[in-house]
Amino acid sequence: DGTLDIIGKKKVKELLAHQDNYPSAVRKTLSCTNVKSMSKWASCPAGMTATGCSCGFACGSWEIQNENICNCLCLIVDWAYARCCQLS
Amino acid sequence: DGTLDIIGKKKVKELLAHQDNYPSAVRKTLSCTNVKSMSKWASCPAGMTATGCSCGFACGSWEIQNENICNCLCLIVDWAYARCCQLS
Amino acid sequence: DGTLDIIGKKKVKELLAHQDNYPSAVRKTLSCTNVKSMSKWASCPAGMTATGCSCGFACGSWEIQNENICNCLCLIVDWAYARCCQLS
Repeated sequence: DGTLDIIGKKKVKELLAHQDNYPSAVRKTLSCTNVKSMSKWASCPAGMTATGCSCGFACGSWEIQNENICNCLCLIVDWAYARCCQLS
Repeated sequence: DGTLDIIGKKKVKELLAHQDNYPSAVRKTLSCTNVKSMSKWASCPAGMTATGCSCGFACGSWEIQNENICNCLCLIVDWAYARCCQLS
Repeated sequence: DGTLDIIGKKKVKELLAHQDNYPSAVRKTLSCTNVKSMSKWASCPAGMTATGCSCGFACGSWEIQNENICNCLCLIVDWAYARCCQLS
């Protein structure tokens, strides 16, 4: 069992280090980007989720549609800005 | 060692695929939802964290209390909106 | 193979339970905090990312710089507030 133990430990560590999906899980971090658009809407890139929005003309009223579109709700808004995040 | 290696690889992959908590870690994504309330406060569901808030009457001043409650700080606010996220 | 199977299963579970980085991956959650500053800027602590911002004087226009600095864009703003998140 001693030899098997040593071989086994090494093997498991190797397999964990090299298998396809394990390292990505271990190293995953919260990664975000910004999208600004000269309209009332700003859309996050595919695969990203909007975590918050900002709007022109000091407007703090917005909602998020379909998980990734910031929609500024004030009557007059010259730009929309989406904060977009994902695990990567 | 060759046989052990083959058996070992297969076994580790099987165990990783079937153990209780591993798959959820590998597949975890950022998952968000919205909560709107006709008051100055909007509370995220249990287990979720507020990542941003929106308020009625164009108000962009807010704070997050207890990790999951959006509190709009303007004098006149007719609704509050919380963006609520978790890993799932 | 039966004995090896039993030894192997136990070993893999032990190794998974005790190796340095696995548990953190499995247990990772979205963890957030708030930073408020009496200026137009609020900076998240190192390692955290801003997911949204709030500003004084009802201002809802902001942008995020360098992944972790909230910058309020209205002319008159007495405070800035950053919602800062990370996986932990």
